[in-house]
Amino acid sequence: MGEYKTLTKEGRTLAAPVITLISDFGLVDGYCASMKGVILGIAPDAKLVDISHEIRPQDIRSAAFVLFTCYDCFPQGTVHLAVVDPGVGTDRRAIAVRSRSGFFVGPDNGIFSLVLTKERGWEARILENEGLWHKPLSATFHGRDVFAPVAARLARGIPFDLLGPECSPAVLEWSSPDTGKSEVKGEIIHIDRFGNCITNVTTEHLRVTGSLEGWSVHAGNVEIPSILHAYGDSIPGGVLALVGSSGFIEIAINQDNASSRLGLRTGTKILFLFTQH
Amino acid sequence: MGEYKTLTKEGRTLAAPVITLISDFGLVDGYCASMKGVILGIAPDAKLVDISHEIRPQDIRSAAFVLFTCYDCFPQGTVHLAVVDPGVGTDRRAIAVRSRSGFFVGPDNGIFSLVLTKERGWEARILENEGLWHKPLSATFHGRDVFAPVAARLARGIPFDLLGPECSPAVLEWSSPDTGKSEVKGEIIHIDRFGNCITNVTTEHLRVTGSLEGWSVHAGNVEIPSILHAYGDSIPGGVLALVGSSGFIEIAINQDNASSRLGLRTGTKILFLFTQH
Amino acid sequence: MGEYKTLTKEGRTLAAPVITLISDFGLVDGYCASMKGVILGIAPDAKLVDISHEIRPQDIRSAAFVLFTCYDCFPQGTVHLAVVDPGVGTDRRAIAVRSRSGFFVGPDNGIFSLVLTKERGWEARILENEGLWHKPLSATFHGRDVFAPVAARLARGIPFDLLGPECSPAVLEWSSPDTGKSEVKGEIIHIDRFGNCITNVTTEHLRVTGSLEGWSVHAGNVEIPSILHAYGDSIPGGVLALVGSSGFIEIAINQDNASSRLGLRTGTKILFLFTQH
Repeated sequence: MGEYKTLTKEGRTLAAPVITLISDFGLVDGYCASMKGVILGIAPDAKLVDISHEIRPQDIRSAAFVLFTCYDCFPQGTVHLAVVDPGVGTDRRAIAVRSRSGFFVGPDNGIFSLVLTKERGWEARILENEGLWHKPLSATFHGRDVFAPVAARLARGIPFDLLGPECSPAVLEWSSPDTGKSEVKGEIIHIDRFGNCITNVTTEHLRVTGSLEGWSVHAGNVEIPSILHAYGDSIPGGVLALVGSSGFIEIAINQDNASSRLGLRTGTKILFLFTQH
Repeated sequence: MGEYKTLTKEGRTLAAPVITLISDFGLVDGYCASMKGVILGIAPDAKLVDISHEIRPQDIRSAAFVLFTCYDCFPQGTVHLAVVDPGVGTDRRAIAVRSRSGFFVGPDNGIFSLVLTKERGWEARILENEGLWHKPLSATFHGRDVFAPVAARLARGIPFDLLGPECSPAVLEWSSPDTGKSEVKGEIIHIDRFGNCITNVTTEHLRVTGSLEGWSVHAGNVEIPSILHAYGDSIPGGVLALVGSSGFIEIAINQDNASSRLGLRTGTKILFLFTQH
Repeated sequence: MGEYKTLTKEGRTLAAPVITLISDFGLVDGYCASMKGVILGIAPDAKLVDISHEIRPQDIRSAAFVLFTCYDCFPQGTVHLAVVDPGVGTDRRAIAVRSRSGFFVGPDNGIFSLVLTKERGWEARILENEGLWHKPLSATFHGRDVFAPVAARLARGIPFDLLGPECSPAVLEWSSPDTGKSEVKGEIIHIDRFGNCITNVTTEHLRVTGSLEGWSVHAGNVEIPSILHAYGDSIPGGVLALVGSSGFIEIAINQDNASSRLGLRTGTKILFLFTQH
């Protein structure tokens, strides 16, 4: 893990540090704003970017997925603050992870599971240094009182080992596709705003055959004969499969909602069959 | 009110001024963006932070509550722009309040009622100086034409007394809990995104007995035998009462929605009973 | 088009460039954040302002309208990034427009139609310079891979003619009001968050009679006898017509939702009748 290049305050004189926020706090209460206020009190020049606060309450897996799809678009050194935290106030640990991409701060409940599968050379710390927190500590809102101030201090360049002792973060298991010689059994892991159904099957899983040609996709009663390039390659209303923007195969309807039209949900099994030409 | 320390432009050279926004404008129209555009034209270095734009249309009390729960997390000198304004274009006054925490700009309809209960040494002005407004003045959108430009100018350090004459802001009444020797009668004042039901009863009201021990909570048909520390101190699905992040006692269900499960609404009466040990 | 004043990097030393974002991406996925991450990697000092990400999926007209209502509140030189893009990955063109107000970047599907009716001295380019894009190029997410990086480079002052060859942007037709001597036939073009029904009839259409006095408004079975000044000029619950904040006449109910109460929708015909005094 010696490859990690410390981001010094000096190294940041050209750009304000970026802090992203993802949570299940929604946008009707003052919870997100409280975190942002605390951050700006500590790191006044931080650039705050919301990833999403509309994660379904307590849905750690969804937050892990959404964070995974976008974190590596951000500049190196970005601090990602992730708070879906049903265990707040109990003995669940609070952690920060440092990797080549940047920093990740949140509860140790698996919310960084997918990021950790992609990042190399990471190191994690338990947040035990109470001197870095916002006081008084609430038992119900560590987003404001623990994670936000620690994220702000990381953005300002505090040495990572000051946070607390090293640890191994909790990791949630995601089902992996079953890959056979001419079939791949996967499932839907995310429904996006458009109703596009994102599977856990990537181009890597299908390219064992050399290309994406020759694969058909079977979702419930629907058979999709091939994997297309773009939504608009189908007629409006047409069901299609294509490679989504994060590399996963997704099932979509051109200009309509595939999830509601086809009754597909997170967890629905999807079968990919390879037919010789 | 001589204690208020004027924030000079000089005093801000290290940090851009923060302007928060709270409104009932929602996120589907261009109303919020219009306000932000006006602000950035006047105060290009302002840091804009949304508190919420999902306040229920015309719900001044909800905006007052949400602002109250988060405003004091922000750095001193922050300008809070609050626009829930059913009386726009009529003779309701437009005001700004200056306090030790910062500035508050909006319609004089009680939206700052709860903030004013907490702030000390505040001063209020009627916005009558039309030279500070955005022209031409619309009769339906003072958020863009009056409040945003005044907020931006306050962020840039304009002298407060230039805004207009002094005034006493309108104040809405909130019901206070009935506190007896061994019982407290309160009510629910806010339902948050998680369905947690926040009451108007604080730890202060209950600590007349010396501690939070020995109190039970009665909400509709449900009796909650004690006040716990954290959501996760109950089993998943278990009903609990605890001290929320703003100091109010709230009724929650661990990993579920207490409001919808228990039929609790804003205004529902909640009874706290103290039982001798 | 020689009037356009090039914004040099020098000319921007006093203020960070502003980039607004409007899309149908919603707030539950990582799509917006991906665009913002890409932008901040290229233009670290850009100020990002969300207009809306809650445009109904694929509703280009709605995005065009919302952008139109707010873009000219922003400082000169602002870059507006608009991504409602059902044709992504097909042969629809990607474009940028430069005008006196600023820059507009997005798919060439008519999303800038209304802006173009108002802007003078604009010039458009096809985005063909792949060296300015984010690689590898996804077929489904040009918001991240084409539009965001081009917007960021425009914010940093890249010469406009480097983007690609000149073009004429696609323009969608909006129905114009039918204006007679004493009647104007218009229609509803937008329903806002409050349920206010915004028509395509402006004060210009009605002022042929010299003023807004003497006009009545007919929407479905409802007759509104005059055009008022402000929502609060009617009693709570009263139906009224007034001049909205973008200059269009709108039909509203004071403190209630006119669209749902009166069954008015986008496309509903509205009749304005002038009665001699």
